[in-house]
Amino acid sequence: MKVYLDNSATTKPYKEVIEEVSNVMESNWGNPSSAHELGYNAHKKLKECREKISGFINCDSSEIVFTSGGTEGNNLCIKGIVQPGNHIITSNIEHPSVKNTVEFLKKNGCEVTVLNVNEKGLITIEELNSAIKDNTVLLTVMHMNNELGILQDLESIGEYLKVNHKRVKFHVDAVQSFCKHEIDVKRMKIDMLTTSAHKHHGPRGVGFAYIRKELSPKQLIHGSAQEKGFRAGTENLYSIAGMVKAAEIMHGCMDENKRKVTGLKKYCIDQLTTRISGIRINSEICESISPYVLNVSIDGTPSEVMVRVMSDKGVYISKGSACSSKTESASHVLEAMKLTESEIKGTIRISFCEGNTLKELDYAIDKFLEAVKFLRRLKI
Amino acid sequence: MKVYLDNSATTKPYKEVIEEVSNVMESNWGNPSSAHELGYNAHKKLKECREKISGFINCDSSEIVFTSGGTEGNNLCIKGIVQPGNHIITSNIEHPSVKNTVEFLKKNGCEVTVLNVNEKGLITIEELNSAIKDNTVLLTVMHMNNELGILQDLESIGEYLKVNHKRVKFHVDAVQSFCKHEIDVKRMKIDMLTTSAHKHHGPRGVGFAYIRKELSPKQLIHGSAQEKGFRAGTENLYSIAGMVKAAEIMHGCMDENKRKVTGLKKYCIDQLTTRISGIRINSEICESISPYVLNVSIDGTPSEVMVRVMSDKGVYISKGSACSSKTESASHVLEAMKLTESEIKGTIRISFCEGNTLKELDYAIDKFLEAVKFLRRLKI
Ligand SMILES: Cc1ncc(COP(=O)(O)O)c(C=O)c1O
Ligand SMILES: Cc1ncc(COP(=O)(O)O)c(C=O)c1O
Repeated sequence: MKVYLDNSATTKPYKEVIEEVSNVMESNWGNPSSAHELGYNAHKKLKECREKISGFINCDSSEIVFTSGGTEGNNLCIKGIVQPGNHIITSNIEHPSVKNTVEFLKKNGCEVTVLNVNEKGLITIEELNSAIKDNTVLLTVMHMNNELGILQDLESIGEYLKVNHKRVKFHVDAVQSFCKHEIDVKRMKIDMLTTSAHKHHGPRGVGFAYIRKELSPKQLIHGSAQEKGFRAGTENLYSIAGMVKAAEIMHGCMDENKRKVTGLKKYCIDQLTTRISGIRINSEICESISPYVLNVSIDGTPSEVMVRVMSDKGVYISKGSACSSKTESASHVLEAMKLTESEIKGTIRISFCEGNTLKELDYAIDKFLEAVKFLRRLKI
Repeated sequence: MKVYLDNSATTKPYKEVIEEVSNVMESNWGNPSSAHELGYNAHKKLKECREKISGFINCDSSEIVFTSGGTEGNNLCIKGIVQPGNHIITSNIEHPSVKNTVEFLKKNGCEVTVLNVNEKGLITIEELNSAIKDNTVLLTVMHMNNELGILQDLESIGEYLKVNHKRVKFHVDAVQSFCKHEIDVKRMKIDMLTTSAHKHHGPRGVGFAYIRKELSPKQLIHGSAQEKGFRAGTENLYSIAGMVKAAEIMHGCMDENKRKVTGLKKYCIDQLTTRISGIRINSEICESISPYVLNVSIDGTPSEVMVRVMSDKGVYISKGSACSSKTESASHVLEAMKLTESEIKGTIRISFCEGNTLKELDYAIDKFLEAVKFLRRLKI
């Protein structure tokens, strides 16, 4: 049996997504900028995709900019609206595509405040309030954290900014939450938002940025006039169509999926905590943590080795986030959550999708037990 | 009958490419950065793709950086190696992804010299020589022009730079030539090179940049450590694999394809010039012009209308380049070639692929005749 529990790293594309990508490649492969029939057909499809996507986050279709993924989207939104001398606020649990972008800007003349999250992993309005200065132009925080599943309270943050500091733009990295948790950019008063299709059973190398009408970020990629001039390059229609297909499927059963994975997570927590000693749950089931992610620390089981041992048994999990899993540096997110060094050493991430089954979990849990016993005996 | 003669705008993905993309999406969809078996399989496939690609241009696989396409590649290579105060040299027939990138840098403190091409559309060593200054760091020129098919003599340019101005880096936009004309970065002494898969029957939204080992361009997109840190973002393995498949097929019959399209172009020129009066061939058959592109000016037939009339008849051609075909501004490339205003007005691009047939051309030529007659009668 093979059990994939690493859905925060990437997801298996839906069958329907693969079909859609193939279909568009076969029958709608014109360049949307071409002035002939094939170009027109591609342009029309692109327009339909833009309209559908905008419906999922409650914005206007003219506010959608298609990108090559979450990393590019974060770079576009953040670099796009700041100038040297501006002040940026972010949190200490961001993904490297935000963290390193902000650090780059700091080296290039921006001021940066990194908010510490509280014991629940949340940024607080108090901290945010005291961080804002006259030159603050941007707050960038993620919706759902990729290592722990922590969900920021976007509505309160957005409301606070709009009422008190209208000048400060609100950017949200929603790569992990889009299609899993509801997003309404109007209600949440979000100015810019980033997603990536491969995190929600779509294709790789595609995503979108929502950029509120009034904003006009500097281009990251210069060239022809595609995407209202915000993002040059021939439009990746095949993948965009695949992304829309995945988003449609997931939005059709978002609540049902959430219930399903909550059940899976609960079962997993119950089984692991009753059957394994020395285990700490870092992402309980609660309002402010996504059911899609279960992060645990297990005494005496170094996570790198654990991931490999489990892989040999056909169970695929992750250490911290996938992008840092091949480097040896400790996760800045777990440090921000004040886990001890030895807890961090034994921390793994189990991330679900709605397609996982209890049978898969039973198999995986048995393998966890074997692996923990084995690794503890080795005393590494 | 439908005849696609707009292969410089984009190409129909090969059946084998669609299959490869589907296969990888179905069976090798892990995140190459994941430390488990699925990640390992994806990583292995990525490595194979990198090796195959490097073979096509005679570089080391470590010198390949996968990108989201030609536009991003051009931005990465050009912005990556210049600083304010540096001097950049380019030509007056570049694609907007180079032209606008260079103009952006000019506004941001770089000096720029735009070389005029000669009557054949070529930059000359004399002009290049007199443009080089103490602070020159980069020459960026395209291999094959997208509107006319002009092929720069990369070998002479590379040799000249390496012998006389080793400090000046040589970047080539090879988006139109890769897989159609031979590229050997060692022999041509190229430092950086950009491609885009959808121009050679590969998927959209993917390409690669070759960046010589010794160079280390600044990142355009910050984030995790993918692509040696030059290009962050989860690797788009499906599309990369599709691109490699397309490149393999095309490299298997590059000479044969060239012979085939030369035949098509010759036939087309013969037929058009004998059957239509007031026609000017802007891209003859010769050593320094690619057989894949036929650019002609026809008196009394405004190209925007021509493209639409031909489209209604099922023949797909283009006005200038696809990316400018919806805007009304005259092509800077045709202006650089010193075409008169009225010639430019009637200029169309017919661009072939090896799959086009004489039967298709006979059909298309008949339709051209009809369209020319019709438009000339309208006197618009
Ligand atoms: C929270 C978050 N933001 C951004 C990204 C970057 O997305 P991508 O790698 O698709 O560019 C990821 C995933 O890697 C992520 O988890
Ligand atoms: C010469 C040239 N360079 C760059 C590009 C940009 O490629 P892409 O649109 O795939 O980013 C194109 C095509 O549009 C081109 O013809």
